[in-house]
Amino acid sequence: MHTRTVFFISDGTGITAETFGNAILAQFDIKPRHVRLPFIDTEDKAHQAVRRINHTAELEGKKPIVFTTLVNMSVLRIIQENCQGMLLDMFGTFIRPLEGELGIKSLHRVGRFADVSLSKEYTDRIEAINFSLDHDDGQSHRDLNGADVILVGVSRSGKTPTSLYLAMQCGLKVANYPLIPEDFERRQLPPALEPHRKKIFGLTILPERLSQIRNERRPGSKYADLANCRHEVAEAEAMMRRSGIRWLSTTTKSIEEIATTILQEVRPERLVY
Amino acid sequence: MHTRTVFFISDGTGITAETFGNAILAQFDIKPRHVRLPFIDTEDKAHQAVRRINHTAELEGKKPIVFTTLVNMSVLRIIQENCQGMLLDMFGTFIRPLEGELGIKSLHRVGRFADVSLSKEYTDRIEAINFSLDHDDGQSHRDLNGADVILVGVSRSGKTPTSLYLAMQCGLKVANYPLIPEDFERRQLPPALEPHRKKIFGLTILPERLSQIRNERRPGSKYADLANCRHEVAEAEAMMRRSGIRWLSTTTKSIEEIATTILQEVRPERLVY
Repeated sequence: MHTRTVFFISDGTGITAETFGNAILAQFDIKPRHVRLPFIDTEDKAHQAVRRINHTAELEGKKPIVFTTLVNMSVLRIIQENCQGMLLDMFGTFIRPLEGELGIKSLHRVGRFADVSLSKEYTDRIEAINFSLDHDDGQSHRDLNGADVILVGVSRSGKTPTSLYLAMQCGLKVANYPLIPEDFERRQLPPALEPHRKKIFGLTILPERLSQIRNERRPGSKYADLANCRHEVAEAEAMMRRSGIRWLSTTTKSIEEIATTILQEVRPERLVY
Repeated sequence: MHTRTVFFISDGTGITAETFGNAILAQFDIKPRHVRLPFIDTEDKAHQAVRRINHTAELEGKKPIVFTTLVNMSVLRIIQENCQGMLLDMFGTFIRPLEGELGIKSLHRVGRFADVSLSKEYTDRIEAINFSLDHDDGQSHRDLNGADVILVGVSRSGKTPTSLYLAMQCGLKVANYPLIPEDFERRQLPPALEPHRKKIFGLTILPERLSQIRNERRPGSKYADLANCRHEVAEAEAMMRRSGIRWLSTTTKSIEEIATTILQEVRPERLVY
């Protein structure tokens, strides 16, 4: 059971507050209750938030932890002056010294995710998601020139979640192609991919884990059979080695770690890294 | 042209460092160059990072801004003692006071995204992505009992990106159904959805914006025609109103804002909000 509540307060979605707060809380061996209070953009809502926090403090007999990313100073002040929680003001803490170093004032602009929906960056991101869906699982060979990254690997090696993550979070157009028995027999990459070799990245996986994942989808099938998985993985790895394609094993990696490694290796031109 | 470089240094993917750093930088009217330095997990790599930062400092004649989320103290110390950038140590700043409040020591555990790939939470998330893909665009009526959220709306109102975001970031199983002329003629929701009304959330959009988006996909089609878009949107909104379904307009909202509002309204049981 939780014995401590953590609040995430923001003028906007609260996603930044929660992302950062979760990263910090992961450093402690506790399982607190999470309460996200998004869109706290008026003094009225600030007072409501204070009441909730102080009520929780009384009930639990412990200070709630309160992460805030508030940029509206009158809202922030109400929380600061009245809340009985432990306040961790993420913006204030870093923005003041940055104003000094940069020699300019901060904008007090609400939320990174507000007012972006008509921006070029945002429409590019939606387009990247659509591209990646249209090019999932080898569905389309069209417009591969437009792809930033092309993932290859056996079925269920992690291509689809990785493609969608790169599209959603980095705005990259990612196509993905399964490597299948026909490719192994021909001992070559799918021909449509040959001209785009520089953008190709391979995913592989331990056969034992692959068999387990496939068995959840199609129990007892040849597709999921360990011997078959061993064969497919060995063929795919041999092909990637022969073709000089960079690859990694996804077996113990999260989508975020896979995506980060791909970005480091492929270095898509459109990213300013 | 950029005149300042920002580094994001992490023992892990650097995603937390960059998410938070971007949110802070969005408060300033500058366009810095971004350099993410992930997986800095040895003293050797720390020295390499320092050399890069100091080289940049010399070239630009300005202190680079350096966001770190390092938890390995010997790595952090090397950066602190040698780097000529402005160091913003996001973890250290908040973890020390939290140790005091919580009365326990922090774990110095690397990266929220490391060693998670075999956890229940992580496999649930992958399953949520697969569910949402399988239930995209009304493809399947199966297993709607297992859905956490069901989105409805006319084609291109934002259902697919929102579904995938909720799956990827919140681990929710999200089905989405287009509202089509047959539904409008019948003046009822798709029959398969009726038993799940509590989980349904509607997306709508301004006809002018919808027509613009559809024209990018199918220029000059009846599908994209403004009069047709007006008709579809009016029918869809009337139907949602009649059925007592909660809905919002996505016209000027980002995926993050749409998702946050849906979570507040639907409050899926599986989330601990």
